[in-house]
Amino acid sequence: MTRTTIVPTPGPKVPLVDLADGTALLTDQYELTMLQAALRSGTADRRAAFEVFARSLPAGRRYGVVAGTGRLLDAIERFRFDAAELDFLTSNGIVDEPTARWLEKYRFTGNVWGYAEGDCFFPESPILVVEGTFAEAVLLETLALSILNHDCAIASAASRMVAAAQGRPIIEMGSRRAHERAAVASARAAYIAGFATTSNLEAGRRHGVPTAGTSAHSFTLLHDSERHAFASQLAALGEGTTLLVDTYDVERAVRTAVELAGPSLGAVRIDSGDLGVMARLVRDQLDSLGARDTRIVVTGDLDEFGIAALAAAPVDGYGVGTSLVTGSGAPTAGLVYKLVARADAPGDDVPLRPVAKRSPGKPSRGGRKIAVRRVDGHGTAYAEAVSTGEPTPGPRDRLLQVPLVRNGEIVGRESLAAARERHARCVAELPTTATQLSRGEPALPTEFVDGDPPR
Amino acid sequence: MTRTTIVPTPGPKVPLVDLADGTALLTDQYELTMLQAALRSGTADRRAAFEVFARSLPAGRRYGVVAGTGRLLDAIERFRFDAAELDFLTSNGIVDEPTARWLEKYRFTGNVWGYAEGDCFFPESPILVVEGTFAEAVLLETLALSILNHDCAIASAASRMVAAAQGRPIIEMGSRRAHERAAVASARAAYIAGFATTSNLEAGRRHGVPTAGTSAHSFTLLHDSERHAFASQLAALGEGTTLLVDTYDVERAVRTAVELAGPSLGAVRIDSGDLGVMARLVRDQLDSLGARDTRIVVTGDLDEFGIAALAAAPVDGYGVGTSLVTGSGAPTAGLVYKLVARADAPGDDVPLRPVAKRSPGKPSRGGRKIAVRRVDGHGTAYAEAVSTGEPTPGPRDRLLQVPLVRNGEIVGRESLAAARERHARCVAELPTTATQLSRGEPALPTEFVDGDPPR
Repeated sequence: MTRTTIVPTPGPKVPLVDLADGTALLTDQYELTMLQAALRSGTADRRAAFEVFARSLPAGRRYGVVAGTGRLLDAIERFRFDAAELDFLTSNGIVDEPTARWLEKYRFTGNVWGYAEGDCFFPESPILVVEGTFAEAVLLETLALSILNHDCAIASAASRMVAAAQGRPIIEMGSRRAHERAAVASARAAYIAGFATTSNLEAGRRHGVPTAGTSAHSFTLLHDSERHAFASQLAALGEGTTLLVDTYDVERAVRTAVELAGPSLGAVRIDSGDLGVMARLVRDQLDSLGARDTRIVVTGDLDEFGIAALAAAPVDGYGVGTSLVTGSGAPTAGLVYKLVARADAPGDDVPLRPVAKRSPGKPSRGGRKIAVRRVDGHGTAYAEAVSTGEPTPGPRDRLLQVPLVRNGEIVGRESLAAARERHARCVAELPTTATQLSRGEPALPTEFVDGDPPR
Repeated sequence: MTRTTIVPTPGPKVPLVDLADGTALLTDQYELTMLQAALRSGTADRRAAFEVFARSLPAGRRYGVVAGTGRLLDAIERFRFDAAELDFLTSNGIVDEPTARWLEKYRFTGNVWGYAEGDCFFPESPILVVEGTFAEAVLLETLALSILNHDCAIASAASRMVAAAQGRPIIEMGSRRAHERAAVASARAAYIAGFATTSNLEAGRRHGVPTAGTSAHSFTLLHDSERHAFASQLAALGEGTTLLVDTYDVERAVRTAVELAGPSLGAVRIDSGDLGVMARLVRDQLDSLGARDTRIVVTGDLDEFGIAALAAAPVDGYGVGTSLVTGSGAPTAGLVYKLVARADAPGDDVPLRPVAKRSPGKPSRGGRKIAVRRVDGHGTAYAEAVSTGEPTPGPRDRLLQVPLVRNGEIVGRESLAAARERHARCVAELPTTATQLSRGEPALPTEFVDGDPPR
């Protein structure tokens, strides 16, 4: 027999200080090599506009949800090249000394506009516009896309689940199935989209998302009997707690739960089996035991379709994990960051002219774009109008881009509650087809009002 | 017309210090409520063993890859409840004062064994075993699962891509399509699985993964002409650089590139179109221009199948983004953390007895398990043997679990290079069916040698 061996090494133990939260290296190397080449060729200071948009929505989806904006603003503020970053870059030959000196002084001094967090988006919606010198704007590509691609994907999936739940609360509980930091961002994005709570404590601390959670099967298995486990939990957490009833036998567990807690038991949770069938059986049993106010929470591989299938079941709340943190089949939002306009020479007064690549299959439209949601007399949106010139909005139309960063200063910070409320309003404004779960076309057509045709 | 409005708020700007890298709140709330209840009921100090395993592999996959172990060990070391964490927990009523006092002193003092990083796993392989008191072990559930579910999913997808590339190098370039911190972990996991380099700079700094990257379409568009852009890049980065040739017209771009750089041009990159067709055309053109050593790198929505389809094309390297960071259809590894044994009373000498829940559709096997990879006389693995008793390994069999934490002390740290080398060895040891891309059964059957039958 052989043994798998570990040869212990003193490294690569990561020193604590190294994990501080600078964001400047959360970047693809090519941004720095482009910077270096542009500094040398004299093009680095040309003013430029980059846009973030999705060429399409994930197959069959009706709308996307903007999320991550607030996190992006925090991350831009922390985008600094300090000694540790510069040392890594120069000692590995990634940038030369002049570039390192430029990076040392780097602060983003440009402007950012974007769709307000929680708003909806459609194919080619220009959800973020970054304007500055090429050098300062190109460096934000990876950071902006990482944050927005992740958070928009999660919020877009979450919004469908919220619609499917028809007002019943959903607990986000997917942390165990996602990268440990992505999990925190997922909880935040799900809350914007209308989830009620999260199991993730860091999301509570950092973002103020309400947290929830009571017990797992291991707690029941730890005790000598289910009765002992339930009694322990009730003693510690009170009668309002949620008891998990499917470790051994659901019918027996429900009987034990009500015997111990009485009719004021807060809730029971079912995590396995046919959830619709189980919920009906448990509801009948709870009612027959007089526990008419005890709620039923169901969990276990639910997604928007699973939630919708339980609409007629006596369910009071859902817990959603894996499908939420993986974007329910669309784990990234497909957003790209494209140069759409740039000046021919350095200087603030040089006009920007549209640029676009001509790669087959990936058409791009040049020019800095402005977006308007067209809204009819009944308050229902009917089109996403994107223009490269000044738009001519109707009386109820909504101009979608708001200032987020002005001359390097963050101006677009707002509370998470504001984004959450906006999302509810923006979905309500869409045509009713928007919340259909079936695959279909985007709920709004994107109209290019006076933009250039694709080249 | 209405304007989307942002009501700026002073909060929730996140103070820098708050983003330090404690890991204790990267946890589901129920772990703390279970702790509180167990402390009160006197069961918290019962010794317990938890195991991490996957009930199945993603549909059709032949093997999984263990990754994240090194990150988990770092994270366990930083799992501390300091004043900020405790203040959040108590002021929000998540734990009571006695629990907070217990958490304040918390250090994991137990033992962890696990499959060495880079090894392969199969359904029900016990890839991690955490043993300690229930209280100290239950708290690590979310952290362990978050890290392992993410990193194993990425490494498992990456390993298939490496097999499909048949020795050609792959650049990991998916950061833009993943959460900004998950991207760093993805680059690390891909490197373990055999990727050559990453675009992600933080993965270079933090984990020592070799980095790569040169330029994007925006760099060409920034300049007045493609010729000017190429000349700038060559001046800054040298003739060995990679020029991106599909911004406008590939044939013209290749001609310009060789005119400017001569036959010692390092590489050209093609990011659009039919990559196989384009690679052949470009190879012919480069050869006809005398640039026989100039390599061709292809990128653009490649996954393992796209890579395999290019096996006969004159391609020298691949760049893979989205499909890598999303696990190529399986963004999470489906690992669970289950209590498999616990004592009946507190104390180090009380024997552990197997426990398992009986939830329908989610069978669990009780008992602390030991795993052996059975290897035949030709050095080829033929089974994954999992037993609850002492195994009886054959002469070439490999005992799979190694000590990672001993009485709270990290003992399993090793270099990333060691994990990468191990992975190559472990894949080579599997039957040849393992690297088939087609859907099929796991490459090894999992045999329960003397374990309990499912209950």
